[in-house]
Amino acid sequence: MGPHGDGDIEKVESESRRRPISTVVFVIAMQAEAQPLVNKFGLSETSDSPLGKGLPWVLYHGLHKDLRIYVVCPGKDAASGIVGTVPASLITFASIQALQPDILINAGTCGAFKVKGANIGDVFLVSDVVFHDRRIPIPMFDLYGVGLRQAFSTPNLLKELNLKIGRLSTGDSLDMSTQDESLIIANDATLKDMEGAAVAYVAELLKVPVIFLKAVTDLIDGDKPTAEEFLQNLAVVTSALEETATKVINFIHGKTLSDL
Amino acid sequence: MGPHGDGDIEKVESESRRRPISTVVFVIAMQAEAQPLVNKFGLSETSDSPLGKGLPWVLYHGLHKDLRIYVVCPGKDAASGIVGTVPASLITFASIQALQPDILINAGTCGAFKVKGANIGDVFLVSDVVFHDRRIPIPMFDLYGVGLRQAFSTPNLLKELNLKIGRLSTGDSLDMSTQDESLIIANDATLKDMEGAAVAYVAELLKVPVIFLKAVTDLIDGDKPTAEEFLQNLAVVTSALEETATKVINFIHGKTLSDL
Repeated sequence: MGPHGDGDIEKVESESRRRPISTVVFVIAMQAEAQPLVNKFGLSETSDSPLGKGLPWVLYHGLHKDLRIYVVCPGKDAASGIVGTVPASLITFASIQALQPDILINAGTCGAFKVKGANIGDVFLVSDVVFHDRRIPIPMFDLYGVGLRQAFSTPNLLKELNLKIGRLSTGDSLDMSTQDESLIIANDATLKDMEGAAVAYVAELLKVPVIFLKAVTDLIDGDKPTAEEFLQNLAVVTSALEETATKVINFIHGKTLSDL
Repeated sequence: MGPHGDGDIEKVESESRRRPISTVVFVIAMQAEAQPLVNKFGLSETSDSPLGKGLPWVLYHGLHKDLRIYVVCPGKDAASGIVGTVPASLITFASIQALQPDILINAGTCGAFKVKGANIGDVFLVSDVVFHDRRIPIPMFDLYGVGLRQAFSTPNLLKELNLKIGRLSTGDSLDMSTQDESLIIANDATLKDMEGAAVAYVAELLKVPVIFLKAVTDLIDGDKPTAEEFLQNLAVVTSALEETATKVINFIHGKTLSDL
């Protein structure tokens, strides 16, 4: 039986769209990206985490009015493996299983193309996601590798917050090889990150709506080295990301999925 | 508290090394790689899978004498996403949580370098694993990206089965870009696959010993296109993989982890 053949699940999904959203999980790669949001909403670190024992994963929880907010990160230091598709997919999977969110928000920093209209500090809402480093030149496998998936559609949120929108391309490297670049261009992506398309894959697997807020730390077609520009802009840009995430939470509060 | 600071866990680990191994989980990417093993041990597909509802994942179970054997695959078709690090890490995580194996065996096909002594149909035991497509040129993150991890040490198994041994390098593409190639060579890898290092990462996270059996379907430095050579040799090579996996199971039966 295929994942789309279960009438009960479709019924539950349809009903959940008409109830006010009660639980939001932010999936965030780096502690540095998460901290401003944790501070803003006064979230507490969860001891005895429901995600599993003995793991480096960090979970924060709190209430904003009657909306339950969680923030999950893969760890606090680079040795734990805090970036990339594997940790992101694992924490997404475990968070959905343990916390049963109504919606996921993958928030974080990204690179972007200025030729596609991006500037440092812009926070984009993502239209759809692809991978640019999974080349499998066998029919069907090639499409799986690219992994094109739509973000959950939120036309009212997009209009209300007046966000820029673009396609996100994901890969496990901070730099961009010639081959990565040609695939990013072929896929017409505006943004480049290291987690988004993996989070979308897991969200689809477990049938949870996901949106993406991506704040631009570096211009891929700019004149500065990526790692240097990323580190230089990280603090200012994560602050911009927190501001937009706060607006998103305030917009979501009291609404149903269909209202977004 | 770090993952290595918990005395209780170390005590349990030490005790489990002295008990006969009772549960083995094979993590296998493709149904085509799993089927010969499923047939050989007369395993049954698990309905109402403990790994989660509504997922495309396939779990087989059975007994060989008094050894519980499981085989887990991410799906039966390419659309489910059956290859690569993300599905492999998810099924490894969920299998460990649900089945609590004493040891994991990641078995599958791979590419290999003939200059490193590999031939089509060889089945290698893996010494250690790295990634070749996670380039993060920031201190600490660079090492995380490469992700060097040792396989569980099995000197007696290696000697008894007279297997070839080599380092495995993992990436999400079937082909090999120039940049992938230079990193594989820099890391002195003999084998190239699409899952191993991700399985090792999750096994380490959850503190379960893992070994790798990798059967060579294509010679990276040979003269045939990878996809063509892979498909051409898949059936014969998975049969060789099943033969070696059977010898490994027979060797493991009745032994403790320390005996391996």
